[in-house]
Amino acid sequence: MASAEIERLIQLLAKLPGLGPRSARRAALHMVKRKDHVMDPLARALTKAVARVTVCSACGNVDTADPCGICTDPRRDPTVLCVVEEVGDLWAMERSAVFRGRYHVLGGTLSALDGVGPDELRIPSLIDRATDPVVAEVILATNATVEGQTTAHYISDQLNDAGVTLTALAHGVPVGGELDYLDDGTLAAAMKARRMLHS
Amino acid sequence: MASAEIERLIQLLAKLPGLGPRSARRAALHMVKRKDHVMDPLARALTKAVARVTVCSACGNVDTADPCGICTDPRRDPTVLCVVEEVGDLWAMERSAVFRGRYHVLGGTLSALDGVGPDELRIPSLIDRATDPVVAEVILATNATVEGQTTAHYISDQLNDAGVTLTALAHGVPVGGELDYLDDGTLAAAMKARRMLHS
Repeated sequence: MASAEIERLIQLLAKLPGLGPRSARRAALHMVKRKDHVMDPLARALTKAVARVTVCSACGNVDTADPCGICTDPRRDPTVLCVVEEVGDLWAMERSAVFRGRYHVLGGTLSALDGVGPDELRIPSLIDRATDPVVAEVILATNATVEGQTTAHYISDQLNDAGVTLTALAHGVPVGGELDYLDDGTLAAAMKARRMLHS
Repeated sequence: MASAEIERLIQLLAKLPGLGPRSARRAALHMVKRKDHVMDPLARALTKAVARVTVCSACGNVDTADPCGICTDPRRDPTVLCVVEEVGDLWAMERSAVFRGRYHVLGGTLSALDGVGPDELRIPSLIDRATDPVVAEVILATNATVEGQTTAHYISDQLNDAGVTLTALAHGVPVGGELDYLDDGTLAAAMKARRMLHS
């Protein structure tokens, strides 16, 4: 039996997504065996992050500054807003390095069942930002799920006469995807949105 | 892109066993979104553990006291020593709650290839402890692998005239195990060690 401190550590690790009680124990063991090289740096990094991490009041991103690094970066195009559900989606978008505008993180999707209305998400502040004359385009990049598309639909209704161009991510075959393994909905969307190669 | 603090946290998390870059990112995201309920308690638990965790100089267990809680527990039988490879094996043994003696953690197995000799493991101190007149039995509970069995064999040679009873864990069919899925070695061992039910 491990000491109370280690048991507590295991309990907390087991609450992280992707870690169960067994792997939390394994991770804790790995750490106590390499205290100086693994456990101590992680403890310091976490303590630092706890002290510094904050939510950007402009876009909802998570950063150590408010407004966040993206909102204050002068090289980023202020005329385009990309609307995503969660910070993880923003990170994914940044990894693809294809978008150079700014973001708006909703913080979830509309859900009548869970009592999540527009005011529980960052939809009012999105409408404020979208009506700023600087903003020319709002890209709806919510997930291609029922909830994500419902939320996108609601936002597009709200921004109908905001004087901005509204766009959405394309549906289609994922790069590297095999037709045989794709769902019918994706195939149908890809077929409907087929591109002209030459005529 | 997340801030430098979060990127560092992700990097460190990704080094834990069972977590890759993707799941480390997911865990970090989970934490920054629940700073007060997940990240802060984990940071505190880790900092506390770093400050307190130490290796027991008697048995090699990891604990917040030296000698560890098991070595100093007066209810534990000082006449039986259970020799295990790693602290994780000690934890597993304690979970089964079947052993009430004390432990000796070797810290690995002998390996000519990796240059691990008896002095790299806690074998000299095991021989010291085993020759203590209080100790009556040494149970070799190394893993049932080639390395574990080689190490057990070496120890049994060393303790040949130490005046203690040497025992080893039984081999056999695991509880809940199906014969069809067992390897031949286990089946052969279980057959050889078959128990008398009645005669």
